[in-house]
Amino acid sequence: MQFTSEPRLNDGVVERDFLLGEIPGILWTPEPTSTPAPLILLGHPGGLARMRPRLAARARLAAADGFAAATIELPGAGDRPKLTAVDAARADLRRALEAGERVDDDIIDRLVLPLVEQAVPEWRAALDGLLSLPEIEGPVGYSGGVISIGVRLATVEPRITAAGLFAGSFIPRAILEEARLVTIPLHVLLQWDDEGNDRQAALELFDAFGSPEKSLHANMGGHTGVPAYAGEDAAAFFTRHLG
Amino acid sequence: MQFTSEPRLNDGVVERDFLLGEIPGILWTPEPTSTPAPLILLGHPGGLARMRPRLAARARLAAADGFAAATIELPGAGDRPKLTAVDAARADLRRALEAGERVDDDIIDRLVLPLVEQAVPEWRAALDGLLSLPEIEGPVGYSGGVISIGVRLATVEPRITAAGLFAGSFIPRAILEEARLVTIPLHVLLQWDDEGNDRQAALELFDAFGSPEKSLHANMGGHTGVPAYAGEDAAAFFTRHLG
Repeated sequence: MQFTSEPRLNDGVVERDFLLGEIPGILWTPEPTSTPAPLILLGHPGGLARMRPRLAARARLAAADGFAAATIELPGAGDRPKLTAVDAARADLRRALEAGERVDDDIIDRLVLPLVEQAVPEWRAALDGLLSLPEIEGPVGYSGGVISIGVRLATVEPRITAAGLFAGSFIPRAILEEARLVTIPLHVLLQWDDEGNDRQAALELFDAFGSPEKSLHANMGGHTGVPAYAGEDAAAFFTRHLG
Repeated sequence: MQFTSEPRLNDGVVERDFLLGEIPGILWTPEPTSTPAPLILLGHPGGLARMRPRLAARARLAAADGFAAATIELPGAGDRPKLTAVDAARADLRRALEAGERVDDDIIDRLVLPLVEQAVPEWRAALDGLLSLPEIEGPVGYSGGVISIGVRLATVEPRITAAGLFAGSFIPRAILEEARLVTIPLHVLLQWDDEGNDRQAALELFDAFGSPEKSLHANMGGHTGVPAYAGEDAAAFFTRHLG
């Protein structure tokens, strides 16, 4: 893990770009204090350049509660090499949605599973690098992004002790089964009136999670209209578990 | 409305019993200040004597945020005259549940609708009395209790500007239809693993509400195991809307 930019100070948060091998990433830390900060990994749908303003806003909220935040680019997104098979599945998905057809399980598997397979080891490697920095220590939370990546990370990565997930993407059956193995505290956001979201699948996933402590917060406002108070509730969740 | 007890000061809250005609009630107000307090009506399943400790705890939380709180006994409960037809429906419900049978819509109608018909005018009369006191003024919120009473109150009583509801009881089809007319901000709690609760009916009711701002918070812990943080989120909801 190599820093590739000078630290930039912005609203009390220090922002630094880094490379993990060939994978670009961003680290935000609260203004230097003597105590190392807990870490929240910020998930996203891919495309760091486009997502940077929203990720920076989430990182500033995390920093206000004393947390560092970090993210890396997803496989196939931004300037990373294309994933041809995933792109083909995405084209198939688009065709099915435009034709008003039921989306076949096979399309969802081809779209999501290779992404999970490749991304999860990358996030774990990023965690190795991040936790070796003097300004960061555990516990670690995972927040948002492609929910199937969050489920797999919560299942296989013991350093992640709490996760805030956003129910808003297609979920392979295999991931639904993995959800039963998740035992860490979960805070799941669902936009109830999100027309691009399969609400029933999201409820089924929430039900499947094995965690003794799990909360589902459903709100109105459409896909991108998550209300500000939902962010405050999620922040309280991470403060309870990482603070 | 007549006070029937001396004010008792307990943990910074003044508690007074009252009678509204023949109906017993309890009023909790924050320790006297110069500004009148907003009011939260505390719903409950009936039986004030049994419920008093839990109601007092909710009132203390409300008082900490600057709110007065009040409640009245439900029709047919505590020392109030029995409602024979409702009691017969309750016995039919118990028989159906014990036999593992599907609960007939007719039983739910006979159990819930007469209660709603009688209770709602009583709560509105209580509101008249409470709002005439110098230490209380609007806005008014309604919190918890039999959800069908909450739905009807939210539909017909314009002085109630926000409601926190607990999805945990049987819901007549007529009330589900009324829910579409509700437009005030709603905060709905659901115990996801409450075996005595029809989860699908609760989700259907949440979906039916016409309110542009509505949130569903589903948690684990069984019927009576609402986690403390769920109370904090509900308190934040009332502070946003009544504070």
